[in-house]
Amino acid sequence: MDLLDLHPAPERDRRWMQIAYEEALRAAEEGEVPVGAVVVAGSRLLGRGHNRTETLQDPTAHAEMLAITAAANTLGSWRLEGASLYVTLEPCLMCAGAIFLARVKRLTYATPDPKRGVLGSVIDVSGHETLNHHTEVEAGPMSEECSALLKTFFEKLRKDARSDRD
Amino acid sequence: MDLLDLHPAPERDRRWMQIAYEEALRAAEEGEVPVGAVVVAGSRLLGRGHNRTETLQDPTAHAEMLAITAAANTLGSWRLEGASLYVTLEPCLMCAGAIFLARVKRLTYATPDPKRGVLGSVIDVSGHETLNHHTEVEAGPMSEECSALLKTFFEKLRKDARSDRD
Repeated sequence: MDLLDLHPAPERDRRWMQIAYEEALRAAEEGEVPVGAVVVAGSRLLGRGHNRTETLQDPTAHAEMLAITAAANTLGSWRLEGASLYVTLEPCLMCAGAIFLARVKRLTYATPDPKRGVLGSVIDVSGHETLNHHTEVEAGPMSEECSALLKTFFEKLRKDARSDRD
Repeated sequence: MDLLDLHPAPERDRRWMQIAYEEALRAAEEGEVPVGAVVVAGSRLLGRGHNRTETLQDPTAHAEMLAITAAANTLGSWRLEGASLYVTLEPCLMCAGAIFLARVKRLTYATPDPKRGVLGSVIDVSGHETLNHHTEVEAGPMSEECSALLKTFFEKLRKDARSDRD
């Protein structure tokens, strides 16, 4: 499917990560930890999502999960073979598992997650031959923007918590 | 919440695993890999689910995920603190991650999964201090029944595949 995409790789990656970033902005507007994700195949956007755990009160409603389910709905198949997933933050255990199960070909994340990331930060399951048969993992563009968005969000959260105490 | 449950532990575990097993039977009837799960708190069933990846064409629709989302809906909260999850098969990366995120207190599984299980079989993430703050993991009752159900399912699948080739 990648043959359909004639953009050079860095431009292509930046374009898709920009859309994932816009999803993260939406999450921030909704008071959610700002993480966004898209699933694409070639030049086609198959699914997008942003973190909605608080809005839905559902611990499984991470950006990647919603983007994967949306993409599977678009294709009418749970097998996202050949697809790429772009996400603004390094995936957690749950999301990495879902990405591997969905047979995503290529995963690009913008910024590492030292608290929950399982693709190099806390542990690295990406190279485990039994757990991951399909997915190549890469660090992607827009690390600073995606990281700054999270930092601003958590600073505001702490500030609001202090105001509540005063 | 466990104080509300006056059944002795082995009887209680068997009773809940029996309901998870009945969910697995439903999955088998629907042509799905037969796995079932329930989330409970004390004597209250909060959510139940069985594997529906083929029916929904959604790679995230594992039994545990559906049971967790159902339980969060019942409680109106993504925090399943104090709750127990019973599942017929050792969880995969995705489901273990979801169980940890949901702050499930106690996870009981019936039979190990040598292909995907991440609580002892392929790897063991249950004791990782950064990834799991809340969940105690135990092997539970009905291992033979839950294992036999999976074995029968995969034998039939292979037999059907051979018939298709003949």
